[in-house]
Amino acid sequence: MPRYRLTIEYDGGPFVGWQRQDNGPSVQGALEDAIEKLSATRVTVVGAGRTDAGVHALGQVAHFDLDRDYPPDKVRDALNYHLRPAPISVLEAAVADGQFHARFSASARHYLFRILNRRSPPALERGKVWHVAVPLDAPAMGAAAQYLVGNHDFTTFRAAECQAQTPVKTLDRLEVFRRADEIHIEASARSFLHHQIRSFSGTLKLVGEGKWRPHDVKKALEARDRAACGPVSPPDGLYLVKVDYPPC
Amino acid sequence: MPRYRLTIEYDGGPFVGWQRQDNGPSVQGALEDAIEKLSATRVTVVGAGRTDAGVHALGQVAHFDLDRDYPPDKVRDALNYHLRPAPISVLEAAVADGQFHARFSASARHYLFRILNRRSPPALERGKVWHVAVPLDAPAMGAAAQYLVGNHDFTTFRAAECQAQTPVKTLDRLEVFRRADEIHIEASARSFLHHQIRSFSGTLKLVGEGKWRPHDVKKALEARDRAACGPVSPPDGLYLVKVDYPPC
Repeated sequence: MPRYRLTIEYDGGPFVGWQRQDNGPSVQGALEDAIEKLSATRVTVVGAGRTDAGVHALGQVAHFDLDRDYPPDKVRDALNYHLRPAPISVLEAAVADGQFHARFSASARHYLFRILNRRSPPALERGKVWHVAVPLDAPAMGAAAQYLVGNHDFTTFRAAECQAQTPVKTLDRLEVFRRADEIHIEASARSFLHHQIRSFSGTLKLVGEGKWRPHDVKKALEARDRAACGPVSPPDGLYLVKVDYPPC
Repeated sequence: MPRYRLTIEYDGGPFVGWQRQDNGPSVQGALEDAIEKLSATRVTVVGAGRTDAGVHALGQVAHFDLDRDYPPDKVRDALNYHLRPAPISVLEAAVADGQFHARFSASARHYLFRILNRRSPPALERGKVWHVAVPLDAPAMGAAAQYLVGNHDFTTFRAAECQAQTPVKTLDRLEVFRRADEIHIEASARSFLHHQIRSFSGTLKLVGEGKWRPHDVKKALEARDRAACGPVSPPDGLYLVKVDYPPC
């Protein structure tokens, strides 16, 4: 019963999200369909991050089991063949240890949030960035972000429908950089709450446009109150970049 | 009779090309429609580069005349409003000298050709790169490219339907770089022949995969024969990056 581990890139635009749902196509469902075409077996694919509708991945990780051995490169190529025309690409397939679990074994998840910060709307990167037309102060956003790093009760930055058992999480890293006409927010943690990064992005945008001071983000965090959060940003700019696992 | 100069970004995917044609939507036509909505006047927009179907622009330049003065920022914002939902974005609008001509005043055009060089197909950059699955030798491609730089008869790299008066052109720069899993070909010249850069890309790919030696590109150039060219690459990876004009 070999277990396979996949590294996957996808454009979240046409999907209801990673997770299989009744209301439209999901990344998980598309992968399960492709695996069924390869192996004539219906399996469940487990992903490291349950990305929302419209959220992209550069390096999602997933696992599934098959009752037959296939060369991993054949798995990668066959899944890419059967996935067409869905905008999902299997970058790598490997045989994993039977104990490997894409979700529960993950030691860190790295996300990127891209803001296109210029007057004119995106033409080439439409759906791939959050367009903010007013000039943003990236250093102020970066200073505000530092109040969020560490072990905190993140109730303020958590969606009402979040299923995590506790709002207390450790945020390892939250950095803000200007890259030409984009602002990049990079976030790393073992795990995130539902809408946590989009809540951060929407709140840091308030700082960037001068409506909040950096210190107001600390007050919002300490309020432990969803109502203290800035508007949640759209999903377009969010990418699951990479998932870390401890060495086997 | 003010003349306006625009800097424009677009996704060439849904268009028959820059130029207005009967067989589908063009970038030029979309701009002329948007200008008509702004000014109730039908004008002709002249572009610096007549990009083909599927070719993108990060910095196309165009000009047009109106019989009324508008603040340039209003022109930019109004055109972006009226262009929706077409994937065309006016990055900048300025009042230009009456002698300024987007096409004939240009002193240099800079293009980028992006090859995604990895086994798996693109998910996020679909339509924005040429996917080549076999590993390419970028230094060999770069060495081959140097045979093309300079003043040459480029008949080999010119489409049959090219309307230029002469196949003799000066290629100022043709460089090949690896950028992670992409190969970038950067080309600069005062002007290019029809399909010249896509002919270069398709020919350099033969060198990259080892089917041609770099010196074979020199022989192909010297043949002055369209039949000596490699297969023309698809348009997906090609971007008009920037157009230079002499200082006013």
